[in-house]
This record gives sequence, structure tokens and C-alpha cells, in this order.
Amino acid sequence: MDQLAYDEYFIREALKEAEKAYKEGEVPVGAVVVINGNIVSRAYNRKETTFDPTAHAEILVIREAAKILGAWRLTDATLYVTKEPCIMCSGAIVNARIKRLVYGCDDPKGGGVVSLYKILNDKRLNHQVEVKSGILEEECRAILKRFFKELRESEN
Amino acid sequence: MDQLAYDEYFIREALKEAEKAYKEGEVPVGAVVVINGNIVSRAYNRKETTFDPTAHAEILVIREAAKILGAWRLTDATLYVTKEPCIMCSGAIVNARIKRLVYGCDDPKGGGVVSLYKILNDKRLNHQVEVKSGILEEECRAILKRFFKELRESEN
Repeated sequence: MDQLAYDEYFIREALKEAEKAYKEGEVPVGAVVVINGNIVSRAYNRKETTFDPTAHAEILVIREAAKILGAWRLTDATLYVTKEPCIMCSGAIVNARIKRLVYGCDDPKGGGVVSLYKILNDKRLNHQVEVKSGILEEECRAILKRFFKELRESEN
Repeated sequence: MDQLAYDEYFIREALKEAEKAYKEGEVPVGAVVVINGNIVSRAYNRKETTFDPTAHAEILVIREAAKILGAWRLTDATLYVTKEPCIMCSGAIVNARIKRLVYGCDDPKGGGVVSLYKILNDKRLNHQVEVKSGILEEECRAILKRFFKELRESEN
């Protein structure tokens, strides 16, 4: 399998997680952590249902992977997430020493990877992360658009 | 009580948490969340003992406060922490809609509030946070210096 097909496969798995968030009324973002081709952990945004402002998909999937591995350094891990991580999650990805980040669509209003900041490539920090964006971009954006459209309609 | 004495009182409480981290071999950073003059939650850095890269004092104290209040928006809260929050924690403070941040000493290598970024006053984000730094600065720095000095000595 070539790299693009490989990345698309795991973003599709992250999309399955986003779909779970959607069904629970959460902003639909999903993530998986992959090491050596195996999914170590899966998570989706659970901020509203858990009343936890830190319960973004990325934080939950990192915490779960670290718990399973018994180590806070995830140096061999690739994190796949449907949307560009926010500032908090970008910081967490660096703190966890994630090797590579792959995501679907940009977040112009809050993204910490390319949109507002470039935290994962900040040479002043003690770790940098490889980044690949735009994988299944349209599908990743479509589920967010669908969610926010329905939210606006329900509020009218 | 004037504002400075009030802030010093709660930074001293955060220092008690940092002391607990120190005793457990963790980088000694402590935090408390205060609402209307009452401490809602207390926490210290537990990254090494829990194998959790997100288990900084600020993340833990925010999660605990949100759990107790049953709400992810901590709009009336002041977060007291001994050291300038990192990028992850700065993002979390904005995400949690914390009203005010008070901290002891700066972190020139990793701080997200004044040192590397100014995340809490970024007008592009949907929330800004009042910031007061330098409260009991020397005490907050001293416990960190003591920790890293002993760590270096134990490694020789």
C-alpha cells in the first residue's frame, strides 16, 4: 500500500470516530493513534457529554495510547485526526513526542498547526512533528458542516 | 485583603501542591482553581507517575473543577499556578473560558503566555484571559531549581 492509501485508511478510521461524536451531539472530530500499522487507541470529541473542556479527540486518544503503552513518550506514534488540532491539542502532541500528525481539514479559526500558529514545527521547542494535511479533506469537512448546519436549524 | 495579598495567598496554596509533586519526583508545579474566594480544585503535575503526557497541574485542576461544577465553561474561575503554563495548558485555559490566570515564575523555554507565545491575549481566539504574573516568583522558581539541581546530581 502506498503512503497516501495508508494515510487515507486511518483517516477513514478517524472519521468513524467522528461519526460517533456526531450521533452524541458533539462537534464531530475523531482520532486514532497508530504505531507500526496498528491502531493503539481511538477516540472522539466528548466535551459536552463529559463536561470536560480538555476532552477533545486528540487529548483522549493520546491519554489512552499512553495508558496502554505505560509511557508518556509516544515517539513511534502517528496521530490521525479529522480536523486540524487546536492550540491545546497541538501543544499536547508536542508534549507527547508524537512522531507524525496526519489530519483532514484545516481549522482557520482555531488551528494550531498551520492556521493560527505553527506549533508542531517550532524549532524553539524540544520536539518537532512531521505534518501531513488534506487527507480526505472533503469528507472530514462535510461531517462538520452537516453538524453545524443542523445545529443552526435546531436553534431557529 | 488587597489584591496582591489575595493572589499571594492562593499562589501559596498552589506551592503546597508543587511540594507534593516534588516529593513524588515530578517536576514541581502546582495549581488551584478559585471561584468567589473558594478553592474548587487542587492539583500537581503527575506526568511521570501516571504515564500521562497531558497530566500537567493546570490540565488536572481544570478537569477536576469542571467535573465538580458539571460544566466545561469556567467563566468565573481564576487559575493559580506556580509556573507559566506551557502551550498545551495555555490552550486549555482559553478552551475552558477561564477568567483570570495568576502565576509565579516565567518559563522562557516553553511558556505559552508571555515567553514563546501570547495565547491568552490572542484576539483571533473567541476568549481572552486576564493575566497576572510574578506572584511569589522567587519561591515558585526556587522549588523548580532545587528539583533540577538534585536531578542532575543524582544522574552523576
